[in-house]
Amino acid sequence: MHAIALIGAGRIGRIHAANIAADPRLKLAYVVDPVADAAAALARQFGATVASLDQALADPSVRGVVVASSTDTHLDFSLAAAEAGKAVFCEKPLDQDLARARAAADRLEALGAPLFLAFNRRFDPNFAALQARLAGGAVGTLETLHIISHDPAPPPVDYIKVSGGIFKDMVIHDFDMARWLLGEEPTEVFASTSVLVDPAIGAAGDADTAKTILRTGSGRLCVISNSRRSGYGYDQRIEAFGSKGMIRAQNQLETTVETWGEEGAAADRFQNFFLDRYATAYAREAEHFADILDDKCAPLVGYADGVRALALAEAAAASAAGDCLVKV
Amino acid sequence: MHAIALIGAGRIGRIHAANIAADPRLKLAYVVDPVADAAAALARQFGATVASLDQALADPSVRGVVVASSTDTHLDFSLAAAEAGKAVFCEKPLDQDLARARAAADRLEALGAPLFLAFNRRFDPNFAALQARLAGGAVGTLETLHIISHDPAPPPVDYIKVSGGIFKDMVIHDFDMARWLLGEEPTEVFASTSVLVDPAIGAAGDADTAKTILRTGSGRLCVISNSRRSGYGYDQRIEAFGSKGMIRAQNQLETTVETWGEEGAAADRFQNFFLDRYATAYAREAEHFADILDDKCAPLVGYADGVRALALAEAAAASAAGDCLVKV
Amino acid sequence: MHAIALIGAGRIGRIHAANIAADPRLKLAYVVDPVADAAAALARQFGATVASLDQALADPSVRGVVVASSTDTHLDFSLAAAEAGKAVFCEKPLDQDLARARAAADRLEALGAPLFLAFNRRFDPNFAALQARLAGGAVGTLETLHIISHDPAPPPVDYIKVSGGIFKDMVIHDFDMARWLLGEEPTEVFASTSVLVDPAIGAAGDADTAKTILRTGSGRLCVISNSRRSGYGYDQRIEAFGSKGMIRAQNQLETTVETWGEEGAAADRFQNFFLDRYATAYAREAEHFADILDDKCAPLVGYADGVRALALAEAAAASAAGDCLVKV
Amino acid sequence: MHAIALIGAGRIGRIHAANIAADPRLKLAYVVDPVADAAAALARQFGATVASLDQALADPSVRGVVVASSTDTHLDFSLAAAEAGKAVFCEKPLDQDLARARAAADRLEALGAPLFLAFNRRFDPNFAALQARLAGGAVGTLETLHIISHDPAPPPVDYIKVSGGIFKDMVIHDFDMARWLLGEEPTEVFASTSVLVDPAIGAAGDADTAKTILRTGSGRLCVISNSRRSGYGYDQRIEAFGSKGMIRAQNQLETTVETWGEEGAAADRFQNFFLDRYATAYAREAEHFADILDDKCAPLVGYADGVRALALAEAAAASAAGDCLVKV
Repeated sequence: MHAIALIGAGRIGRIHAANIAADPRLKLAYVVDPVADAAAALARQFGATVASLDQALADPSVRGVVVASSTDTHLDFSLAAAEAGKAVFCEKPLDQDLARARAAADRLEALGAPLFLAFNRRFDPNFAALQARLAGGAVGTLETLHIISHDPAPPPVDYIKVSGGIFKDMVIHDFDMARWLLGEEPTEVFASTSVLVDPAIGAAGDADTAKTILRTGSGRLCVISNSRRSGYGYDQRIEAFGSKGMIRAQNQLETTVETWGEEGAAADRFQNFFLDRYATAYAREAEHFADILDDKCAPLVGYADGVRALALAEAAAASAAGDCLVKV
Repeated sequence: MHAIALIGAGRIGRIHAANIAADPRLKLAYVVDPVADAAAALARQFGATVASLDQALADPSVRGVVVASSTDTHLDFSLAAAEAGKAVFCEKPLDQDLARARAAADRLEALGAPLFLAFNRRFDPNFAALQARLAGGAVGTLETLHIISHDPAPPPVDYIKVSGGIFKDMVIHDFDMARWLLGEEPTEVFASTSVLVDPAIGAAGDADTAKTILRTGSGRLCVISNSRRSGYGYDQRIEAFGSKGMIRAQNQLETTVETWGEEGAAADRFQNFFLDRYATAYAREAEHFADILDDKCAPLVGYADGVRALALAEAAAASAAGDCLVKV
Repeated sequence: MHAIALIGAGRIGRIHAANIAADPRLKLAYVVDPVADAAAALARQFGATVASLDQALADPSVRGVVVASSTDTHLDFSLAAAEAGKAVFCEKPLDQDLARARAAADRLEALGAPLFLAFNRRFDPNFAALQARLAGGAVGTLETLHIISHDPAPPPVDYIKVSGGIFKDMVIHDFDMARWLLGEEPTEVFASTSVLVDPAIGAAGDADTAKTILRTGSGRLCVISNSRRSGYGYDQRIEAFGSKGMIRAQNQLETTVETWGEEGAAADRFQNFFLDRYATAYAREAEHFADILDDKCAPLVGYADGVRALALAEAAAASAAGDCLVKV
Repeated sequence: MHAIALIGAGRIGRIHAANIAADPRLKLAYVVDPVADAAAALARQFGATVASLDQALADPSVRGVVVASSTDTHLDFSLAAAEAGKAVFCEKPLDQDLARARAAADRLEALGAPLFLAFNRRFDPNFAALQARLAGGAVGTLETLHIISHDPAPPPVDYIKVSGGIFKDMVIHDFDMARWLLGEEPTEVFASTSVLVDPAIGAAGDADTAKTILRTGSGRLCVISNSRRSGYGYDQRIEAFGSKGMIRAQNQLETTVETWGEEGAAADRFQNFFLDRYATAYAREAEHFADILDDKCAPLVGYADGVRALALAEAAAASAAGDCLVKV
């Protein structure tokens, strides 16, 4: 069993802690968090020890570090862990600043430690099956791609203000999915945005609605649709159009129950909370980290992927601001 | 073009008239109906002539007769037409009395005229595709069958009183479908009925809800579910279970429009009026009659089929009355 | 009954002839076509008279003219009919040349005759229900729109060469749908195209794949996806995202039959031939023309709509050629 | 945290052990199994102690006992645990012998210990939601019920021989669901069976296919369809027909991925292994046992329910053997 130190005992940290505990190959050894109560409670629940970062990194039995702290600390903590020779599992995003992310990714790569950047959607069973079948030729050669990513409700405006904007905060997930599925790097970006959900989001200098077109060198096209509030739940769908067919992943429903009445048939609502929708994805992230520690595979997503997604986000923001196509 | 005489200018007669007119191989020549106004209006609309039955049958150019008059006249008019050497297209049911139907079917068969008994569901594109694929081995060897046949709303109680009862009036359609799809004659019938929709139906000596099990000689089983009022529209579904899979036909919706809201996704309502639901089936009946007149095929459903469905209806009624299995 | 002259006895002309004949308010009086045999056959089938255009227009009993001839004659024949005081039902497109179409539309409007430009998709029961419910507030205020319009197979390259290009030939349908559903005029267009289906289409100077973003003055966004060959049939879908939900129209299937096997459940194929898919829409166009002749309503789509869709097509082609946003 | 003793370290015992460990209110204290290795491995994994039944029951800190041993020991172990004052969570079935089950249920009830008989389907989120909405009047008053319960593949014939027959071994689940959903006790049973899957099952004196009709005192009807081998996966569906609509629970799919090709759209396969299909149900059983130990609720299913389901199974077997309706 590989001993793990977890940095961050907040909401997402607790998810990772539970998944580490449930995996027979991993053992949660340390919990690091400046909020002492949160760290203590989490450590107690899973039989771990509260520690400072230095203490945890100094323990040679610790094989891996999960960075689930606030976004602005991701790079520093990842670097500290890599320098201590630990494998790193870092929550996305890498950073909001492209230049800084690029520099850090270079340094991290030089250190040679396995670095896993946890873009959760790649581990969703639906999207993973879609990717595997697409890559296996189930619909011939991929031509175009549609990604729909609409949130059930917008975050507080105070969060919007420090979020880095809709492209770095929200669409970045879809840029990663697009890169993963397209099988080629996008070379051109065009984005058009609007404020349709809440004027306060516009007043904060951001948009709440975006449509983005990516184009790869060989001419594959990808359309991404984003909204901060869908009006009908958490809409997470992908359609991939190939030379021999189309493959798509639909939304997950809370139950399979349908009600038929005079007005028609009604299905149950979507899984609307992202921690429900992606519960299996988070569990599979922990399994993937165990695989990395077992030397079974390299990280499926690395820091370089984070840099590239961030570069697309910057390009999209520039396109929307300038009403023009941006080459990447 | 084959000249056709139509007996009956009521609701179903008008449907057949329009389908005859639309078929380039058929010509509506005569309309026969004791209600002079109805006959005249229908004849005018499609360029036909009002006539008595004798007049229409005496015209040697008339090739076929469509019997769409009231149920109690089906046998007599079919016999008259067959004796005049015409091909006959008779609305179901053949008759409500099994002995009389049997005797008439024997006489009709002896006359040698083509006799097409129009069980409309066999001509529905969905059920026809299901039957063809099932017969083609799409799901291996058929084992069991589920037929759901729930009406949107019960007929008036005055109709119930003269309907012959739920088995002869309603389930008879499903007995015909069962015989067609099972590929073997049912040899055992068990039926259980209830009055759940309207006590007035019970007071009239009938039931409004029935579940029937048929068993064939080789052990194939068929379950038929009937209700005079579904609470959610016109439910017409079939599921056929084979050794290698299941094939089913679902309900037809009014449109493909779906609405997604916070409570889930809602599809449009079913096609609830049987003349909408089976509009294509009626048109295909006319095409089938043209094929018969063109000597392209024998009737897909004949009077003997009507006799056998009626025999199953009598057996089911006896089973429900006696709480016992009835051998056919 | 309103007497109608039909110009054009080709494939689409025959569809309109049959729908006119089936409508009790319309009577097909004349068929005009330089191909004498085609005109004669169609006239014979529906009891009409073969005539020259002048003869047909000279008959004062003729109330309406259906222009179903080749595209390059649409404007001239429409003008001739309007000058003769007839109501006009013209197949789309109006013309391939924007300036000419604009000039003609102005002249036609000045003549005051009712002019119905037959964009068939507006009459599809699914899209019409979607539009009505959307306009009725079923999903709150419309925010964004996704239109998918993928053909089953590309036309011959010889057709591509004279088609006016993918935007004028194919996407123009979707521009009309977008205008109809958005409830506002698009003011910005961005389009990205590729040659992914057939290099011969690229060699002919056209593209076979396109993604287009439209933006209205108030910030509503519309994405249109087009492919000349889908690999999975005729894909005609619309999703409209509103403040309170999403409403969409799905593809029509050939039957409701599903097959369930070890690999999962399979539904039947789409209606892949556009004349099947839009058969009801064509019938409703005839009904709409009868309504216009009955003075029950003004044309739902007029020549000005054709001009505006054509302007969007030109803008989209310019955007794709210049890799830039184009203001309309 | 409530200390739990688990009897049985086989496949289902290991499922219960993991769910107990994952529940913060329960602690797996003892594992009891005559197979020493299995007991030791399971105890080691979850930090429990291997013990004999007597040792485990003698520990006053043990609040609950989970009986997951072989069927023939269920009654004896439940009785021993209840006599020791422990709450009991017993895997279904209670027993194969109705008289013995009845006697034991009476004795157990007299002991007053909470007795939870784990019919897993009641804890499936889909069926539980269906039951709650049905009971809440979502479709008006329940009238009839259809239960489909087809296994992906038959068990070995050696198992069939000791299984008690299809009604006691397989349909018993559906009898419990029927009782739960009907809201009334069935008073009449008719069943028809066949050997269609494997003649060896018939040679062993059992059937592999069954259709059963239940009727309650007020006339509600329930149809249950069973097959030992479906040919298309694990088919677990329920449709409940009420006065105002229909509510149903569909099968769970492995993923939401669909593939669209020229032949139509294909969905992913069903969850075919019962431990996958009912994984959440097993977890909710553990939660329910924790609720019982917390005195939050009485057992949702008790031993009396097991007796009644067994009585229906005996009646159905008698009906099928005698080709007659059996009153319960």
